[in-house]
Amino acid sequence: MERKIYLNNLPLERAREIFWNAAQKRKMRVEELDTRLAAGRVTAEPVFARISSPHYHASAMDGVAVKASDTFGAAPTAPRRLMLSENAFPVDTGGALPPQCDAVVMIENVTFPDKDNPHILEIREAVAPWQHVRSIGEDVVAGEMILPSYHFIRPFDLGALISGGIFQLKLLKKPLVSLIPTGSEIIPPGRMPQAGEIIESNTYTSAAAIEQWGGDVTRQAVVQDEIALLEKAVRRAVRYSDLVLISAGSSAGRRDHTFQVLDHLGEVLVHGVAIRPGKPVVLAVVDGVPIVGLPGYPVAAYTVLELLIRPLLYAWQKQPLPMQEILQAKSSRRILSSLKEEEYLRLKVGKVNENFIATPLARGAGVSMSLVRADGLAAIPQDHEGVEAGESLSINLWRTPAEIENTIVCLGSHDLSLDILYDFLKRGDSPYTLSSAHVGSMGGIMALQREETHIAGLHLLDPESGYYNTPYLERYLAHKEIHLVHLARRELGMIVAPGNPRNITSLADLTREDVIFVNRQKGAGTRVFLDYSLAAEKIEPKIIAGYNREEFNHLAVAAAVKGGSADAGLGIRAAASTLGMDFIPLAWEEYDLAIAAPFYDTPPYHVLLEVISSPAFRAAVERMGGYDLKDSGEKKA
Amino acid sequence: MERKIYLNNLPLERAREIFWNAAQKRKMRVEELDTRLAAGRVTAEPVFARISSPHYHASAMDGVAVKASDTFGAAPTAPRRLMLSENAFPVDTGGALPPQCDAVVMIENVTFPDKDNPHILEIREAVAPWQHVRSIGEDVVAGEMILPSYHFIRPFDLGALISGGIFQLKLLKKPLVSLIPTGSEIIPPGRMPQAGEIIESNTYTSAAAIEQWGGDVTRQAVVQDEIALLEKAVRRAVRYSDLVLISAGSSAGRRDHTFQVLDHLGEVLVHGVAIRPGKPVVLAVVDGVPIVGLPGYPVAAYTVLELLIRPLLYAWQKQPLPMQEILQAKSSRRILSSLKEEEYLRLKVGKVNENFIATPLARGAGVSMSLVRADGLAAIPQDHEGVEAGESLSINLWRTPAEIENTIVCLGSHDLSLDILYDFLKRGDSPYTLSSAHVGSMGGIMALQREETHIAGLHLLDPESGYYNTPYLERYLAHKEIHLVHLARRELGMIVAPGNPRNITSLADLTREDVIFVNRQKGAGTRVFLDYSLAAEKIEPKIIAGYNREEFNHLAVAAAVKGGSADAGLGIRAAASTLGMDFIPLAWEEYDLAIAAPFYDTPPYHVLLEVISSPAFRAAVERMGGYDLKDSGEKKA
Repeated sequence: MERKIYLNNLPLERAREIFWNAAQKRKMRVEELDTRLAAGRVTAEPVFARISSPHYHASAMDGVAVKASDTFGAAPTAPRRLMLSENAFPVDTGGALPPQCDAVVMIENVTFPDKDNPHILEIREAVAPWQHVRSIGEDVVAGEMILPSYHFIRPFDLGALISGGIFQLKLLKKPLVSLIPTGSEIIPPGRMPQAGEIIESNTYTSAAAIEQWGGDVTRQAVVQDEIALLEKAVRRAVRYSDLVLISAGSSAGRRDHTFQVLDHLGEVLVHGVAIRPGKPVVLAVVDGVPIVGLPGYPVAAYTVLELLIRPLLYAWQKQPLPMQEILQAKSSRRILSSLKEEEYLRLKVGKVNENFIATPLARGAGVSMSLVRADGLAAIPQDHEGVEAGESLSINLWRTPAEIENTIVCLGSHDLSLDILYDFLKRGDSPYTLSSAHVGSMGGIMALQREETHIAGLHLLDPESGYYNTPYLERYLAHKEIHLVHLARRELGMIVAPGNPRNITSLADLTREDVIFVNRQKGAGTRVFLDYSLAAEKIEPKIIAGYNREEFNHLAVAAAVKGGSADAGLGIRAAASTLGMDFIPLAWEEYDLAIAAPFYDTPPYHVLLEVISSPAFRAAVERMGGYDLKDSGEKKA
Repeated sequence: MERKIYLNNLPLERAREIFWNAAQKRKMRVEELDTRLAAGRVTAEPVFARISSPHYHASAMDGVAVKASDTFGAAPTAPRRLMLSENAFPVDTGGALPPQCDAVVMIENVTFPDKDNPHILEIREAVAPWQHVRSIGEDVVAGEMILPSYHFIRPFDLGALISGGIFQLKLLKKPLVSLIPTGSEIIPPGRMPQAGEIIESNTYTSAAAIEQWGGDVTRQAVVQDEIALLEKAVRRAVRYSDLVLISAGSSAGRRDHTFQVLDHLGEVLVHGVAIRPGKPVVLAVVDGVPIVGLPGYPVAAYTVLELLIRPLLYAWQKQPLPMQEILQAKSSRRILSSLKEEEYLRLKVGKVNENFIATPLARGAGVSMSLVRADGLAAIPQDHEGVEAGESLSINLWRTPAEIENTIVCLGSHDLSLDILYDFLKRGDSPYTLSSAHVGSMGGIMALQREETHIAGLHLLDPESGYYNTPYLERYLAHKEIHLVHLARRELGMIVAPGNPRNITSLADLTREDVIFVNRQKGAGTRVFLDYSLAAEKIEPKIIAGYNREEFNHLAVAAAVKGGSADAGLGIRAAASTLGMDFIPLAWEEYDLAIAAPFYDTPPYHVLLEVISSPAFRAAVERMGGYDLKDSGEKKA
């Protein structure tokens, strides 16, 4: 129950410099390989042609090889007669010239005037010596340097090498990276985990990343949280590796042994870098082999890979880092960031009304979906408190700018049909794709006001009129031209555990002492519906246990019920059935898409409309249960 | 001796459309694979999480799990006392919360006040319910869509998939491409070819390119030029392939069978596309499988791969084409191009005085080194006569703009030491590299005049003064600030066949009737030396047989002698010895580097100077023979 040591907080640049000075001493080994297998590899020395290409005087045309002087004076009006096999020799493109010849007459300029003697031919144009001849070495001359040292071999380099008689060549060996997954709670992928067990995934991400960056990977079996076992694994790995990565255990907890083991076996250079996520990284050297202790949180581990491992692998292979597209985009919201670390944000980016708008994704180091969903990364420097809404961010794009421009941005309420819509767009032939972020219905309306979205998904009940959505457009967006298109009617109700063990049948049951509720965030359509219904039934929200606990989408509410931290929550039927929960229906609500005028009637809008009106899409959504799409695509306002 | 058919000349866009309409009908098959092997592959269907992650309420910190209500009211001044194993439970980051707990107190906020009873602990800060807890589904909720259809799987996608309980998934099978090399003259790489034999290289380039673009490759044995054999190979290939490429034989010569075979077995859609190089391509379909007959010239074949095959492979895999950097650069010279075809130029690009300057490389379809040396491609449209010197070209860059900016441009006379210099720069730690193009010494001087090069390599003898280089700078570049730095003294002489069979001992022998000469181009320093020496000895150039045949560098002259098309040529000793020729010395000449003032004294210049003054570089050049570098790097003017 003791905390062993406290971490440093070294700036990234300084940590990188210290680590590189140690790591760069390691030189990559050299291996000889068949040229045919050398694409994507790096030359270890300059390569000089062993033969010329062509290695003989070759015809550059289909035609007749001649001695040029035999054709001098030939003209359409004064054809020159030659004899096959005597002073004219048929030759194909690439074929060798007979020794006495020094030029080729193209087949188009040859005629056979005598039907009885096919050996007689006539030439109507003189050729100069060496005309239509590829002389020896036209492409590659023996002795010429084909490739310098440290050249990354592309497909067509293989052709030049082989033509130059290079059938084997010396290449830099790929950097060999050993991965050591650690943790007594870790199980391999393949079976479903018990509580407290975690399926190992980080080293598979690491392995794929390292291979993408040109490294070779070996992966050890999972090492339990015992110092002796980890020491043994590290000793084995440093014998044959250029780099060792220890996955998890890099922090300072009672079961984090990476620091201690590396400090014992070699030299720890850095423990703790001022980046977020990724702070508790260990950088060390054992027996001349650089070793990185990676944090256990997946986003932290990947951030360290990108910032520290990727550039090292490229440097070892003597290659420049591949260019990444930088895009300037406006932050859609205020983002506070710690002064203590440089923070790497995952962001979604869209282009709305000629402005690129970036929205940060979940910032937790454990949210691997924030990497999956991201369009790029941006750094908020150490000593910066964050960025204001509307402030510009430099985003390292993971997609092409064309893909960003073809992205339909949808901010607003969460609905499962949006995922289906995303999938249908991906399956279609159009270049358009959908990026949806879940900020609640009111969040969607504010995004339309600020022109940060093309579309907002809404299901807002107006307590006075009993109408959905249209009253809100009139109230909040009257000064803007907004179109409203119906997407779905969906069944809203209470999500409860299977068999409804608390016997919850109405909203009034939420006030019972034995019932714990889980709520949606303020501004969510479901929250508006709840508050409206509670008011109608004169139920005081504050007496509902759990009213203040907010989740951000239907599935999270259902997951809370499934996990037992709540007995009931409000959500759609599909969320309940997806997680195998029971459902107490309360109402059918209207889920519509509010569409900003500049986006309406554009080609991506038409593609979108076509999908949501299609029988295949309707069927796919209705299959989830609790959905009625018979009017999907109808214009409401 | 007959020419079978004439080719069409279909515009590329039209040919692509016709071919794609046929090829796109083919759907990629689906296969199921272990998630751990799925990086770089494409999903065939949307993937929904099978479990939540975390799948239990997990501690987000190292600390003590508690019931939040037990901590209410705790403060530094009013610590709350708890008992381990009763109402406080040690928990590590990622560990499961005991069922009765709903929050975690960070280890930093826990103290052990009683030395005798380590079970007693004090908490100095209250926690809210669910504080420091990663609740079920924080990352992925069971039922949530992790990836849509047709998603290209990146390393971190693996982590999210595995965490979501996805251990197998359905992927698009890679497009299977069969390669059929053809040609009776073709031999496999491994042994040196005889005259008329060609080492097969195109299908190795094709295979590497197709794999880079996501395809799988199978390669058949070389097929001789017989219709029946090619038919058999095609029939076999279409049984299991998504695409078949026949290498060489796509034109209309007497040994070109691709058209005939495909016309017989299936439907030829296009024969002949208006592109250069690459015109004689055949596009066909046999049994629903698209087939491409590739031209035999390596640059033509690669151009067809890039323009027609690459986009098809990406489309089949439902992926956007990777972005290519487009750079606007000024053409350093006038480039004439046929009105009949769209021409794809390979170019070298450099940045000189803030201008990007592009210089076309050898345009022959057989010069594979033009691909190796290229920094990018530019197209001159059909119906354009070409571009003027100084006109802007849109270049599809193969290197990053940063690499272009770090390139030292050297136009001028060819010297083998420039290749060594290029290699030394690549081996060094600086980002700088060298791009040299061989335009002769006078070409280098003109490039300095037009500010199209940083450096020019010169060896120009002034007939009047007997000095090298400086008189030319005064004559042609007096209005510019140019520095002259010595690179090497090199031995110039006559290159003759081994054993000197024609017994050539002086320039006068070149006038003999039994001696054929090979010359260098006008403006080359060697040509200037020859003309000066001939004038000094009062030898009339026009009586020298072969005086008008011009080669563009020393190695090409030596290759002409080696190939037997000439008996003698002027060149440096190293070129003769590289190709095993004999050498009759005539003079030592000064090879210097003329350096434009804006480039002088810049960081890349200093790196360059350091290399050429280094003992290692001197030794490497002198090892070739005929070189003296004792003064290399000395400033002359």
